[in-house]
Order: sequence, then C-alpha cells, then structure tokens
Amino acid sequence: MKQIVVLGSTGSIGTNTLDIVERSPHAFRVLGLTAGSNDEKLEAQIRQFRPKAVALSDPAAAARLRQRCGDLGIDILEGPAGVAEVAALPGAELAISAIVGAAGLVPTLAAIRSNKHIALANKEPMVMAGQLMQQEATAHGVRIFPVDSEHSAIFQSLEGHRLEDVRRLILTASGGPLWGLPAEDIQDVKPERALKHPNWKMGAKITIDSATIMNKGLEVIEARWLFDIPASRIDVLIHRESIIHSLVEYRDRSVIAQLGLPDMRTPISYAMQYPARLDLDLPSLDLAEIATLSFHRPDHARFPCLRLAYEALEVGGTMPAALNAANEVAVDAYLHHGIRFGEIPDIIRSTMQAHHQRELLHLEDALETDRWAREKAGCLVNALAR
Amino acid sequence: MKQIVVLGSTGSIGTNTLDIVERSPHAFRVLGLTAGSNDEKLEAQIRQFRPKAVALSDPAAAARLRQRCGDLGIDILEGPAGVAEVAALPGAELAISAIVGAAGLVPTLAAIRSNKHIALANKEPMVMAGQLMQQEATAHGVRIFPVDSEHSAIFQSLEGHRLEDVRRLILTASGGPLWGLPAEDIQDVKPERALKHPNWKMGAKITIDSATIMNKGLEVIEARWLFDIPASRIDVLIHRESIIHSLVEYRDRSVIAQLGLPDMRTPISYAMQYPARLDLDLPSLDLAEIATLSFHRPDHARFPCLRLAYEALEVGGTMPAALNAANEVAVDAYLHHGIRFGEIPDIIRSTMQAHHQRELLHLEDALETDRWAREKAGCLVNALAR
Repeated sequence: MKQIVVLGSTGSIGTNTLDIVERSPHAFRVLGLTAGSNDEKLEAQIRQFRPKAVALSDPAAAARLRQRCGDLGIDILEGPAGVAEVAALPGAELAISAIVGAAGLVPTLAAIRSNKHIALANKEPMVMAGQLMQQEATAHGVRIFPVDSEHSAIFQSLEGHRLEDVRRLILTASGGPLWGLPAEDIQDVKPERALKHPNWKMGAKITIDSATIMNKGLEVIEARWLFDIPASRIDVLIHRESIIHSLVEYRDRSVIAQLGLPDMRTPISYAMQYPARLDLDLPSLDLAEIATLSFHRPDHARFPCLRLAYEALEVGGTMPAALNAANEVAVDAYLHHGIRFGEIPDIIRSTMQAHHQRELLHLEDALETDRWAREKAGCLVNALAR
Repeated sequence: MKQIVVLGSTGSIGTNTLDIVERSPHAFRVLGLTAGSNDEKLEAQIRQFRPKAVALSDPAAAARLRQRCGDLGIDILEGPAGVAEVAALPGAELAISAIVGAAGLVPTLAAIRSNKHIALANKEPMVMAGQLMQQEATAHGVRIFPVDSEHSAIFQSLEGHRLEDVRRLILTASGGPLWGLPAEDIQDVKPERALKHPNWKMGAKITIDSATIMNKGLEVIEARWLFDIPASRIDVLIHRESIIHSLVEYRDRSVIAQLGLPDMRTPISYAMQYPARLDLDLPSLDLAEIATLSFHRPDHARFPCLRLAYEALEVGGTMPAALNAANEVAVDAYLHHGIRFGEIPDIIRSTMQAHHQRELLHLEDALETDRWAREKAGCLVNALAR
C-alpha cells in the first residue's frame, strides 16, 4: 500500500485524487492533506480518509477546523510552514502536488527534499524553477511524474522508447473557450464568457489561462524541464476536442500519442501508480461515437501569450518566473479588478521587458523574481484598473 | 551491422526494405534475397546489394538469372526449397518476411528455425498457424516483429506498458476502396474499381482484401497471436485517413496510439532496428495540414468478410487456415476468372461450412487444411465462373 500526501486536496485535482483513492482502497493510504482556506471540505476529507496530519495555509480556517476536529487526534497545522511540514511528512513515498500557482513551489520542493516522488499537477514549480526542481529530484533519488493531461500524454508516449530517438514533442491545446471568437471581440471579452471551457472543468485561474492560451505556454516551459527537450523541439497543435492529449514524434517519423476522454482521473492515477495502471471503471473512449477530430495551427495574433512563453524560455534564467508571476497577477486583475482581457498579455510583456533576467541558481532567485514581478505587474494593473 | 535476408524482395515491402538499407548503409548488410519470378528486378537488387545467395521460386526465372549473373559468384537457388534455404542462410540474424500469401509460411518457419528474428509483413503465417509460429519462435529464442502498419502500431503502443493492463486492441481500417459505395453496387463492382485504394499503394491481392475488409479480418487473427490477446478484446475501427495506424486501450481507459503518414518504411525500419529508430528523412505528419480525422463503426452488412474472420478465430484450430486459403482462391478468381465481388464472402463461407475443423498441432495440419480449402474453394469457383 502506497502512503501518500495530497497537497491542495480540496481543489479539482485533489478531489479527483481522493476519488481514485476511494476507488482503490487497497492501493493507497492518505497520510497528509493540505488546503488553502476551505476548512469545511477538508473536514469531510479528514473524516473519510483519516490522515495523520493536515494543514491549511489560512490560519483562521485552521482555527475553525481545530474546533470541529480537535477530538480526532490529527495534527492540524497552519500557514505556509504548516503546508510544507505536511508535504515533508515522514513515511509517505508520494506527494500529489496540486496546489494552484506559485504557492505550490515551496511545498513541492519540501516533498522532494523528504525523498518523496512527486505526482505534479501544479505547473508553476516547473515553470518558475524547472531545472532546479529536476536537480533536486535527482539529488534525492525521486522522480517527478506529470499529472497534467498533456504532460502525462507525453510521458506515456515516451515510455518504452528511446529519448535519443525523439524528434518533437507536440502538445495539444483545446484552443480554450475563446478560440472561435473574432479578434476584435476577444479584446473585451467578459470573465463569465472566458470561464466557459468547452471540454475541461477546472479552476478559474487555469480556465482563463486556457482562454489566453498562456496555459499552453506554461506547459511548453514545463515540458522543456520535465522531458529535457529544448523549446525549439516542442510544438503546439490546436485540437478542439481534447481527445488526443499530446504526441511525440520520433526520428523515423513515427508518432506516438495518448488519447482518452477528458477525465483527469486517468493521468492522476497513472502518476500515482506508475508503471502499473489502476482498473478505473470509467467510460471508454469511443472514436466512432466522437466521429471527428480536428486540428489547427495556433493563432499567435489573436492569442499572443503563447509566444511570450516561448520568448521567456528562450531568454531563460529567471524570465519564466517573471512571466508566470505577471500572468498570475494579470489573470487575477482580469477576474476581480476589471482590466480588459486584451490587457493580460500587455501586462506580462511589459513586466518581462522591465525584468533584468539573471541565472537561476537557487530557489531564492525564483522566489525573488516572483515577488519582484508581482509588484511590477501589480503597478501595471493599478495604472489600468478602472 | 545487422545481417539480413529479405524474403519477397521484389514486392512492395521488399522494395521498401531495400530502400531503408540504402538509406542506412552502415546499419544493415543484405545476405540473401528471394523472389517469385521477377528475375529482372532481382538482378538489379543483386547488383546493388551483392548478397551471398538468392532464390527464385520459379525455376525458369532462376535459369534466366543464372545466365545473366553467373559471373557474380552468388548462389542462385530455385523453387520453394531454394527459397527456404535462403531463408535459413547462416550468419543472418533477421529475416524480413514479405512473401505474399500462404507461400510465405514455410520460408518464415525456416528462418525462425535457423534462429533468426522475423520482421513479419506476411500475414498468412500468423493467420494459418499463429500459435505454432509463436511456439517455434519461443523455442528458438527469437522474436516476431510486426511490419504491417496496424500491428506495428499496436506493437509500438504496447512498448513500455504492462500487458496485464491492456483492455482492448483497436485495429484501424481505412474501409478500403469501396467504403462509400451503396450496398447494391458493391456486389458487382469491377476489379479496376476495387483496386483503387485511397491511401496505400499495395499489391493486387491485399488491395482486394482491403476492398472486402477481409484484410482487417486477417489482421485480427494475426493480432490475436502476435499479442496473445483473445479476439473478444480486439476491435476494428474504420478510419478513412489511415493516419492513426492502431490503438491500445488500457484498463485506466488511457489509449496509446501510433500515427504517421502512410509510408511503410516507418514500420519496416522499426521492425528491422527495434528498439532503436532510424533517422529516416521522410515527411513529418502535420495534423494541422490534414485538419480532420474521421471514424466510423465497421459495416458488417455491406462487408461480411470481417465477421467471417472473427468466426474462424472463434472456431479455432485449422479454421483460420481454411478461411485464408478460401479467401486467396476467391480473390484470385475475382481478379482473373470473372466471379462477382459479392461472391467472395460466399465462397469463403461455404468453404468454412464444409471444413471439419481440427486442432492445429503441427505445421502439416495447416498445410493440409490449406490444400483442402484451396481445392474446395476452387470447386466452388468453377461452379460460379462464367
């Protein structure tokens, strides 16, 4: 039985992870759970899975949880330090890293440094400090298994084949909620519209990233470090139906792909139980029923964020961390503070232009860049917000 | 450098194999070549690749070749025995088995028994005696690598994953030259029309098999033995564009597929150099350019041959050998002796009904069934031919 901790257990990936644990009660034992501020949902998970320790990054939420669960004999920790402590919980061999955003970086690193394999759903650690993460994983003898459907597809399409034979990684992108919209409408599209994703039910941040296609840009950066392939050999292909989750082209021009209905439980469970596969009682992919799969080239004019990500990767060093932070601030401002959709790439671009890139040698370089870029992007947002 | 023999070197697969050898002169050395009666093409191949020995199954063609190549110091053998002798040539570690039809069975077995790995393009050995072939391969410590694009796709999609996790094999089928035709037109379609394949340039026999979709039936039987998966877990999916060459569904509902432009050099070279891949300078698959992939369920009413193959596999023993022989006779009669297209499945069905199936314990059981079924199907053809 595999002992696990779930970082970000009340989110979409965390919930799906615990659904898999529920379906495979003899395969996993949940030792630790962490969440942000959703103490009610965490309480329900505690009562079902009986972990040894949990953490809420919001101290007020942790206090509420202690009042209701104080009698269960579970350690209830709080704040970022508490989350990192649960991430490093002794006895667990796998951490599911599903905290949204930059907040996932430190706990994921804590899990690696306590010799846990990582099932990585959280993009930002690899985007902000991919090379460092891989160095740490190597140093601690653990592996980082991708959970994102695209990276899981690449990972599955690389298994059993030789890395030196790889010619190209091809990440598929649904094109997001706004793909069909005329260019002039995209600039001013409202959050309610941009949050309507055609295929995947995800959190608000990642759905807006999907609308700007920055999501795919972050995935290109992630893929670069996960698979040690230069960005020049990572392509993006728009595939509206999200059935082919990604592809690998080999030098004999053979292409291996992973397909499936859009259900995160498949890639999550593969990362959790690799190289074995769980017998998940999910609907089968029926291509005759789906009838048609369609493909397009990315449209960089209407969706400039993807190219910004390639540019950040080309500059290298701390630039991807700056891009990532500026994007988080811009998306938050779009959702809550009334900047226009078309201003998201402007804020990111201006932040990147202002950033003095330097080599990324230590975690602190990424964190410092993250802080700087948030402040910079925040100023840009304030100048625009109405 | 890998020493090889090419059985059926003047056919479509044989020619493509030698094209790969030409492109990778440091990877392979051709020790032997065999052909049927095309002594002119074989002569050209001899002069280019300088094998140690060749064979033509037609003695008259061998006599002509000896007159022209007698001075080259090459052994020129003849007849089925000569072909089998080249197949068993000492020093070669791989035989490319690309003889069309049942004639490939004995030489392929000869290659296995002389401890050669097999790159198998010839369906019939597995259709007629799949279990025996695998037993012989195991006994001689060699492997059978599929070359057929569909089986290569399955093989590539199984690599790196656990057999016990496989749920279904899904063989794709183009639907062949007649897929769109109304049922009433199919019955009397002329060979010129049935020979027009939309995606693949292949020999006449296999193109008619594609038109009747018996080709896919034979592939289901082949897959059953190549991958040791019962027929109930092998599905067929019509995919007109022949881009997804086949798929494997795993029990977590993840589907791995192999894709590529229709070019046999990719699967041939993979079978020849497994697990490495050759750097073939072929066009890349560009899905955005192709734009759409489409899928349909098989139509058993218009194309009854596929179901006959499943039935033969269910009966087991010698029945697939009977089906295969009856099919060869019926296709030949359709091409050359004026039986109707719609009579091809009738002849196969009647032959199967007349066949007293028995266990397939020895090669002779398959060969004896082959002889019997050819005679039986021949009688049925004579009764119909006009």
